[in-house]
Amino acid sequence: MAFSFEVLKTNENGARRGRLTTPHGAIETPVFMPVGTQATVKGLRQEALEELGASIILANTYHLYLRPGHELIRKLGGLHQFMSWRRAILTDSGGFQVFSLSELRKMTDEGVRFRSHLDGSEHLLTPERAAEIQLALGSDIAMVLDECIETPAPRDKAEAALKRTTAWAKRARTYFVEQASKNGDLPQWQFGIVQGATFADLRRASAEQLLELNFPGYAVGGLAVGEPHEVTCEMAAEVTALLPKDRPRYLMGVGRPEQLADYVSLGIDMMDCVLPTRAARHACLYTSEGRVLIKNARYAQDTRPIDPKCSCSVCQRYTRAYLRHLFAAQELTAAILASHHNVHFYLDIMRQIREAIEFGNLANFSSEMRARYTAGPG
Amino acid sequence: MAFSFEVLKTNENGARRGRLTTPHGAIETPVFMPVGTQATVKGLRQEALEELGASIILANTYHLYLRPGHELIRKLGGLHQFMSWRRAILTDSGGFQVFSLSELRKMTDEGVRFRSHLDGSEHLLTPERAAEIQLALGSDIAMVLDECIETPAPRDKAEAALKRTTAWAKRARTYFVEQASKNGDLPQWQFGIVQGATFADLRRASAEQLLELNFPGYAVGGLAVGEPHEVTCEMAAEVTALLPKDRPRYLMGVGRPEQLADYVSLGIDMMDCVLPTRAARHACLYTSEGRVLIKNARYAQDTRPIDPKCSCSVCQRYTRAYLRHLFAAQELTAAILASHHNVHFYLDIMRQIREAIEFGNLANFSSEMRARYTAGPG
Repeated sequence: MAFSFEVLKTNENGARRGRLTTPHGAIETPVFMPVGTQATVKGLRQEALEELGASIILANTYHLYLRPGHELIRKLGGLHQFMSWRRAILTDSGGFQVFSLSELRKMTDEGVRFRSHLDGSEHLLTPERAAEIQLALGSDIAMVLDECIETPAPRDKAEAALKRTTAWAKRARTYFVEQASKNGDLPQWQFGIVQGATFADLRRASAEQLLELNFPGYAVGGLAVGEPHEVTCEMAAEVTALLPKDRPRYLMGVGRPEQLADYVSLGIDMMDCVLPTRAARHACLYTSEGRVLIKNARYAQDTRPIDPKCSCSVCQRYTRAYLRHLFAAQELTAAILASHHNVHFYLDIMRQIREAIEFGNLANFSSEMRARYTAGPG
Repeated sequence: MAFSFEVLKTNENGARRGRLTTPHGAIETPVFMPVGTQATVKGLRQEALEELGASIILANTYHLYLRPGHELIRKLGGLHQFMSWRRAILTDSGGFQVFSLSELRKMTDEGVRFRSHLDGSEHLLTPERAAEIQLALGSDIAMVLDECIETPAPRDKAEAALKRTTAWAKRARTYFVEQASKNGDLPQWQFGIVQGATFADLRRASAEQLLELNFPGYAVGGLAVGEPHEVTCEMAAEVTALLPKDRPRYLMGVGRPEQLADYVSLGIDMMDCVLPTRAARHACLYTSEGRVLIKNARYAQDTRPIDPKCSCSVCQRYTRAYLRHLFAAQELTAAILASHHNVHFYLDIMRQIREAIEFGNLANFSSEMRARYTAGPG
C-alpha cells in the first residue's frame, strides 16, 4: 500500500509533527494545502507551486464534475495528468459547494438534487456518486459527501444534518470498500467528515459514529463559517480528543495566518483555505509584521519588498511601490506576484510550525503570530 | 558611449542582421519587443520574460506619466529599477495613446492638450515634455512626440500632421541635445518617427526632413492601423530606402506572425505589437501550424501541447485540453500560460528570421509562414 501516516513527534499540548505518504509523494505535516478549486491554484503555474514547496493541493469535486467533467478527466489520465501536477491532490466532496453555489438545491436521504450554477442543468449528487467521481478524478485523498447547513444552526437542524451525514458516510464507505474489493487496492484514501455545528455533544456523536466506519483519516467540517475563533477551536478540540492518534486530522477551510498554529495545537494535521490567493487578488498581502493593504498610498514610494523577512522570489525582486502600481493599474501581474507571495507566506508559517513542534515551543510561536496580527500596519 | 548599432549582414533583398548595444545589454536584430504598456507585460513576470529571452521590451510614456507618474519613477531610480528589469526598454512617446485613449484632445502647434482617460485631469504634452518624461523614466530608447491622425486620412490632413510632426521632432531633438550638452552624454537614444499616412511622397518628405535632425535611429509610425498589408509594406519600403543603412529602423505597432518576415525583408530591425499577449488573453494561440482558438470544443480532449513543435515551458508541460479548461473556467492561469506561449512564439519567429538572414534564405521562410497562416486550423 502506497499510503501511510506516521506521527513523528507529539508535543505536550497535542500538536503533532507527522508524515503522510501518498503515491504522489510524502507530505510533511502539519500541512497547509493551497486551494486549486478548478484544477489550478488561481494565478500560479504548477511550476510556481513546486518552487513554493507545496506538497499537496486541494481541488474541488463539484466544480470539476460540472466542468470539464470527471469522465473527461478520467479519460485523459486523471487529475494529476490533466493538470500536470505530480504531487498529491485532495478533492473535496462537493457537499459544501452544492450548499453554497448551486441553485434549487433539494436535499433528500438519497442525496442532493441541484441545478448547476454554470448552466442550470439538473444533477443528483449521492454519497456513492461523489465517491465515484473522485475515483475518476484519481485524487490521492477523497472526502465523503456531507450535508452542510446554514450557520448559526439551530440544534434540531444540526442534529438532522449530522444524522444524514453519518448515513451518507456509511454509504460512501461501503461504495469505496466495494470498489476496492473489486479492483484491488485503490490508489486513494477516503476521509470521513465530522459535522455537528457548534454543539459539542453532536460533534462527539458524529466523531464516534464515523470511527465505526474505520476511515484512514478524519476531517472536521462545517467550522470557520462565521462562528468566533474560540468556538471553532473548542469544537475542533472536542473532535480531535476522540480521533485515533495514528490517523491524519484535517480541519476544513481554515484559516487566517495567526490561527494556523492554534489549530495545530489542537492536534490538527491538515488545513486548506482560499484566503492566501483570494486576499492576494484583493491586494491584501501577508507579512511577518501583519497585513499590508498594498493599494494604500503610503506604499507608493516604498522600495522595500512586501516583507523584508520573506525569502520568496517576489520579495527578492519586486518592491511594494511596484506592487502598488500593478494593483492600481489592474494588471494581471499584480495577482500573480501577490498570490505567489501569500502562498509562500502560508507555507512558510507551516514550516515554522513544524520546526516549532520539533523544538517543543509551538505555544510561543502561536502567541507571537497573534501579537503581530493584532498590531499589523493594516 | 554605451550605445551602438552594427549591421552584421545584409541580404540581397535588404533584410539586415544586426546588433543594437545599450547600457542594458545587447539586442540581436531584427527584434520583436513585447509590449509592457504599464511597466509590465500583461500576465508575465519579469522572470518569465528572461526565460523567454526577451532582450528589450516596450513601455508607454502616456500611461506611466499618468500613473504612477514619471517623477515617482525617477525618484525610485528609473523604470528599470522600478519594475526590476535589467535589460533594455524602449518607451513610446505617448502620441498614439493621446490620440486613441484620451478625452477632449486639442492639438495646437505648441503640443496636445488632453484629459486623462483615468480621472479626467487636464494635461499638456509638448515635444519637450515628452522627451523630458522619457528622460525621467530612463528608458534606453525614447521616441519623439508625433501627431497621429485618423485612418484613412485625406491628403491635406496627412500633410498638416506631417508638417507638425517634423516641427515637433525638431523641438524634441533640440531639447534632447541641450540636455545632453548640459549633463554630458545621456544614457538614452532618441528616435525620430516618420509619418505621412499612405502617401508615398509624404513618407519620403517626412523621412528626408527627419534625416536632417540626425537621429541615431528612425521609426516608421502610423502604419498597420487598418490599411492593407501591401500598403503597409509599400510605405515602409519607401522610407527604409531613404534611411541611413547604419542606423536601426523600427516599424511601430506590427505585426501578425506571418507578416514579421515581410517587414524584415524591407530592412526593418525592430517591431512591437500587443498582439501576442492580447490574443493570448482572448484564447487565440499561435502555433507553427497556424492559429489555435483554444476554446473550440475540438480541443476538449486534445492531449497534445499547444504546439508540438514548440520548445517553450508551457508546451513542455501542459495540454490543449487543460488550456481549454482554464479558459472555459475563466482562470487567471489561462492568460498566464497562453501569454507565455504566444510571446515565445513571436520571439522564436524572430530567432528563425535572424538565422534565415544569416543563411540568406529569408524569402523561403516568409512564404512558408504565410502558407501556414492561410491554412491554419483556426
